[in-house]
Amino acid sequence: MTYTEIEYEVQDRVATVTLNRPDRMNAYTFTMRNEMLDVFDRIDADDEVRAVVVTGAGRAFCAGADLEGGGDTFNKDKRQDMFGGDDLLEDGTPRDGGGTVALRIARCLKPVIAAFNGAAVGVGVTMTLPMDVRLASDKAGFGFVFARRGIVSEAASSWFLPRLVGISQAMEWAATGRVFDAREALAGRLVSRVYAPDELLPAAYELAREIADNTSGVSVAAIRRLMWSGLSSSTPWDAHVADSRLMAALGAAPDAAEGVTSFLEKRPAVFPMRVSTDLPAEVPDWPLR
Amino acid sequence: MTYTEIEYEVQDRVATVTLNRPDRMNAYTFTMRNEMLDVFDRIDADDEVRAVVVTGAGRAFCAGADLEGGGDTFNKDKRQDMFGGDDLLEDGTPRDGGGTVALRIARCLKPVIAAFNGAAVGVGVTMTLPMDVRLASDKAGFGFVFARRGIVSEAASSWFLPRLVGISQAMEWAATGRVFDAREALAGRLVSRVYAPDELLPAAYELAREIADNTSGVSVAAIRRLMWSGLSSSTPWDAHVADSRLMAALGAAPDAAEGVTSFLEKRPAVFPMRVSTDLPAEVPDWPLR
Amino acid sequence: MTYTEIEYEVQDRVATVTLNRPDRMNAYTFTMRNEMLDVFDRIDADDEVRAVVVTGAGRAFCAGADLEGGGDTFNKDKRQDMFGGDDLLEDGTPRDGGGTVALRIARCLKPVIAAFNGAAVGVGVTMTLPMDVRLASDKAGFGFVFARRGIVSEAASSWFLPRLVGISQAMEWAATGRVFDAREALAGRLVSRVYAPDELLPAAYELAREIADNTSGVSVAAIRRLMWSGLSSSTPWDAHVADSRLMAALGAAPDAAEGVTSFLEKRPAVFPMRVSTDLPAEVPDWPLR
Repeated sequence: MTYTEIEYEVQDRVATVTLNRPDRMNAYTFTMRNEMLDVFDRIDADDEVRAVVVTGAGRAFCAGADLEGGGDTFNKDKRQDMFGGDDLLEDGTPRDGGGTVALRIARCLKPVIAAFNGAAVGVGVTMTLPMDVRLASDKAGFGFVFARRGIVSEAASSWFLPRLVGISQAMEWAATGRVFDAREALAGRLVSRVYAPDELLPAAYELAREIADNTSGVSVAAIRRLMWSGLSSSTPWDAHVADSRLMAALGAAPDAAEGVTSFLEKRPAVFPMRVSTDLPAEVPDWPLR
Repeated sequence: MTYTEIEYEVQDRVATVTLNRPDRMNAYTFTMRNEMLDVFDRIDADDEVRAVVVTGAGRAFCAGADLEGGGDTFNKDKRQDMFGGDDLLEDGTPRDGGGTVALRIARCLKPVIAAFNGAAVGVGVTMTLPMDVRLASDKAGFGFVFARRGIVSEAASSWFLPRLVGISQAMEWAATGRVFDAREALAGRLVSRVYAPDELLPAAYELAREIADNTSGVSVAAIRRLMWSGLSSSTPWDAHVADSRLMAALGAAPDAAEGVTSFLEKRPAVFPMRVSTDLPAEVPDWPLR
Repeated sequence: MTYTEIEYEVQDRVATVTLNRPDRMNAYTFTMRNEMLDVFDRIDADDEVRAVVVTGAGRAFCAGADLEGGGDTFNKDKRQDMFGGDDLLEDGTPRDGGGTVALRIARCLKPVIAAFNGAAVGVGVTMTLPMDVRLASDKAGFGFVFARRGIVSEAASSWFLPRLVGISQAMEWAATGRVFDAREALAGRLVSRVYAPDELLPAAYELAREIADNTSGVSVAAIRRLMWSGLSSSTPWDAHVADSRLMAALGAAPDAAEGVTSFLEKRPAVFPMRVSTDLPAEVPDWPLR
């Protein structure tokens, strides 16, 4: 697939996905949805990618759904282009597009870092909730504006947001639909850290490289799936069963031997295993499509 | 129902519920329980109410269960007046009264703001946990004192509290039964903000009006149910299914047209839909009575 | 059982468990695992114990798994001593040892306080996640280093850690495998408070005594089970059912009479009930082994 609304680049084992409609503040479209689904498949398949940074071109991160459809923007009967995919629930309801992207990112085998260079509103922020770490420029702004548009919080954000920031903060932002700045996002734990604009991407890449330079990709993939699906397990027993199987599988595998040996020899580890071919069958997947 | 232990007032689309036994520090009784259940039915049915503020008359918010029964206070065999309702579990056990209020508030279709004007102890604080935002006067105090009375944390607080403040903070407060001030409540994230006493109610009403003045009541009702029931869903797939159905239902409805059009025209929205008649069948309810 | 790798002491109704291999930085072994399982059975059975403090001998808390097995450390086929217990999953997989300890601690009937006197790495930190409160010396360090060793986060930490610190912080620590100091642990809410080294144990004992001196042991045991299993319940209705049964059982029992009477008489309570004999059958257990 050739991308027209995002850019994709891999350098030094870190992928960058750039939302790329700067003249429209990177507003989200069905095309962008399809390109995001494709690029995360590509990321999972590419062993050269150990971590992912997602950012926006120009002054915004993503202004939310493109409203060029006016009052019909969210009307699926009149917007076949926006809702006409064949991604349907069993009862024939079109699947919420932001949710298809969010659930895809939640299953990614590589850690994903959002770098909010500017405004992230509506689906522009909700699609980042299944990313692992969110960093922001002090020029960024945020808004869960759905109640001001007469629709609902989407992209499975009713599941993700209360787990990230607590139900009180989630409800305050969602019920008011308020637009808020990076300081409020940091205080409310939506983002982990705030930077001057020109320090944002360097910080995101530094974190990505801390992962890429020091860890086993197979371990990180397995841990990412354990953690995110652990968040949806009802009891720690489920986690314990998954842990036990993975400790048995990976403990006897080459990366564990190298990980311990290199540590004892006080040298950098060179992990031989590859995510594309060596991921144990015991790595859990989400109980979702 | 005429209320004797609470007051109810609606002004400028915001309801105020005042716990009103100031000579008993608004201590909680079975009568107060019944009035709270009734008033939340009334709030849900009244389209003039877009948000709710709950506070206490006099110097306390609610001192907890009225202990006039002395050592028999919590003995259901001797306190038919306190436990004698017909609200029973299937096995005949009387339902915990605080829990009936908490679960009713959790399902409310309007956002609920607690304004802690003074002491909130025992059920006086646990019944506020399913409210959306808790604000406090710097004169407020709090206590999950159950272990000091020989009983257990009630009002489903073992479910709500760890999700609001984390299990460590929840266990520290519940295992010590300590009474603590507003500063500790803020640091532990039990309350969102602390105010001087005379700034508390204005702040609560400002937040309520931010909701009432800017958003679709149908959107807010749907989002509130999505968020709180999303907190109890095991996986984001459940949230995605609910989102998809609601985006399909509400995206084609009048509030979405007005929400987008008014935004594009840079004017205040006037949402035509009413919660009492226009809430889509797709809005989830909790899997509970 | 006579302990060789931990120490156990009870004083003034507070138990202290000390990880005790100071020459190996208290590195974790299968023997230590077995002793930890045993000591928590002993704690639950002893009515003289109202709270537990866990700390380390010497300068470390616990440096993680003992790596004396070199590259074979985590290889169950070559480490019968480490993995050769008869604690197997139904499919014959050896149960992750850290997880057996973590799940045992999660079910403990007494509150457990971790006092991090020094480094807590790998299983040295993950086994503390089901403890109620974590306090740290400013000399302590932490690391979820599993991805640097080619294995996975164990001890059911994929369930506990995101619930304690949020999924973003959990993933940042687990994906980087970074070692971090007490300040970062506090900011990320892994620990509740940080102290100068010589103030750590006094603070831990002060908290333990606040529990022991003021509360009913039966109440605290019931609340601890309600809270931790409440964290794994899907809906607050489950908590409400458990609450209702326990309020009915305990509300009519002697500790509730003493709790209310002593409060009204403004004197310290002397609770007559004992955890070993008087815990109501209605106290929930985890849905796990």
